[in-house]
Amino acid sequence: MSATNSSPTDARRLRGVLAPVLTPFHADLSPDARRLARFCRWLLAHGCAALAPFGTTSEANSLSVDEREGLLDAILEEGIPADHLLPGTGACSLTDAVRLTAQAVGRGCAGVLMLPPFYYKAVGEDGFFRFFAEVIERVGDARLKIYLYHFPPVAHVGFSANLVERLLHAYPRTIAGMKDSSGDFGNTKTMLHAFAGAGFDLFVGSERFLLAGMREGGAGCISATANVNAAAIDRLYRAWRSPEAEGLQAEVDAVRGAVEKVPLIPGLKTIVAHFAVDPAWVTVRPPLGDLTPAQRAALLADVAALKLALPDMRG
Amino acid sequence: MSATNSSPTDARRLRGVLAPVLTPFHADLSPDARRLARFCRWLLAHGCAALAPFGTTSEANSLSVDEREGLLDAILEEGIPADHLLPGTGACSLTDAVRLTAQAVGRGCAGVLMLPPFYYKAVGEDGFFRFFAEVIERVGDARLKIYLYHFPPVAHVGFSANLVERLLHAYPRTIAGMKDSSGDFGNTKTMLHAFAGAGFDLFVGSERFLLAGMREGGAGCISATANVNAAAIDRLYRAWRSPEAEGLQAEVDAVRGAVEKVPLIPGLKTIVAHFAVDPAWVTVRPPLGDLTPAQRAALLADVAALKLALPDMRG
Repeated sequence: MSATNSSPTDARRLRGVLAPVLTPFHADLSPDARRLARFCRWLLAHGCAALAPFGTTSEANSLSVDEREGLLDAILEEGIPADHLLPGTGACSLTDAVRLTAQAVGRGCAGVLMLPPFYYKAVGEDGFFRFFAEVIERVGDARLKIYLYHFPPVAHVGFSANLVERLLHAYPRTIAGMKDSSGDFGNTKTMLHAFAGAGFDLFVGSERFLLAGMREGGAGCISATANVNAAAIDRLYRAWRSPEAEGLQAEVDAVRGAVEKVPLIPGLKTIVAHFAVDPAWVTVRPPLGDLTPAQRAALLADVAALKLALPDMRG
Repeated sequence: MSATNSSPTDARRLRGVLAPVLTPFHADLSPDARRLARFCRWLLAHGCAALAPFGTTSEANSLSVDEREGLLDAILEEGIPADHLLPGTGACSLTDAVRLTAQAVGRGCAGVLMLPPFYYKAVGEDGFFRFFAEVIERVGDARLKIYLYHFPPVAHVGFSANLVERLLHAYPRTIAGMKDSSGDFGNTKTMLHAFAGAGFDLFVGSERFLLAGMREGGAGCISATANVNAAAIDRLYRAWRSPEAEGLQAEVDAVRGAVEKVPLIPGLKTIVAHFAVDPAWVTVRPPLGDLTPAQRAALLADVAALKLALPDMRG
């Protein structure tokens, strides 16, 4: 499928199912750009409309800025199309956020997904507004499309409706949407009712909310589990108006439920390693850790019992 | 005063009052290394036993790794003695933490002050243990002394007594102490009773706890307010066993109370700008913001009313 649709206001906007792509590491914990590019290609061929590398699931904040920059260039060189990429470029440091965002827009990426600077907690709306304004002004590129990454359960800071409104008012052509990973569908509805239709595309942060989100005017989902279940999630995305939608929602929920029984990122890497028959995939960077043998066995048993439609990842 | 004492086990350990040094910025928000070096010299001459640049108060997480590296080299070149420095080198990214820590130990710094990787919240003790173990092994330098920076109100993660015990057991010569910024003196006492005397030096994170901390076996304090009130805090540190100690504690508490009425970092920069007659000092990086004119006026009125013993910072 295409990463874009044809809305009246903008011919090329992201929609559908995006994976925050897992980052493979070598045994020495350095990032493995070639394995990443291969996995990106596989995801685009198996249900992902586009890719959001350098998200939480990608362990992006466990990477240096040099590593993030290098990986983006590497996957572009390996042929992953820039207009199918929504890299995470948020950072606590203004200079890091500017550098990563400028690189992404310079390379022609469809947009960037930005966490707010998440170290200081008491800065309030004004502080986050100033930060994003400074990034936008410094990058100074009319092509820039920012998707706000709202993830209070981990970042402990986020975007209020009032802050989104201020940003949209100041930068209507740049603020393009949101990934809502609040886990609170009340928040999702508030954002959709306030901003959807004004060129603001909301992606739910978990496919658990995909059907409900589409019914309220959402644009799709950007979900960790899309790393292993994108085809099924994409079927739900395409069929959300159909009578089968509730059943498809239940199917993807069952997979999500199985994966959520273990720590999510090592769990997803374990599944990829298993289906790709590529044990190197399990490696995570500290502070994340490997699954225990018992967790691994239980997860793979669950996955087998679900008779997942996971395509063969080998080769 | 000297940055070191002569404990039976180690001839050169940090003790006393340390400032997490404010970072001055140019108007374009780039760091101002020369102003920083000048301020470091002033602090060492006016009550600070040593300096902890690149802490929370230093806006360190708003700086890139290149900026942090460059500033450390710049102040060393300007003559700030490495053995009086405890730079912050914690980072969410393993590679960043290793790079900053290796630089600091390579330059001969007395130690490093390390936040845990603060993005992922659910990794638990094992995750943080692995992260620190990996940093220590990769830096691979017997001179390394790590002070654990425990600051749950902002980092939302921290060091349990059990984690400290595991780290001390695995790396007894490297894990040197803690800055306890929990704001919970019960935690401070727990840590002191468990580890003080075993070559583990605990610094309270606010001078409000300095007298209480010294009475329980603490090593001093590393406090934001030491940027503007180190001389008085140092008098309390030196006199903690004397009858005047309670009165000195009340005096430093009054200053802290005045500064805490406004956002702390811009408040401290406003005081420095005022006493140094150097308006450029007020600049903060987003997401932090300037004081309002009313906050500024109230703060400077409070400072005047307290008849602070702040030495003249001019020149």
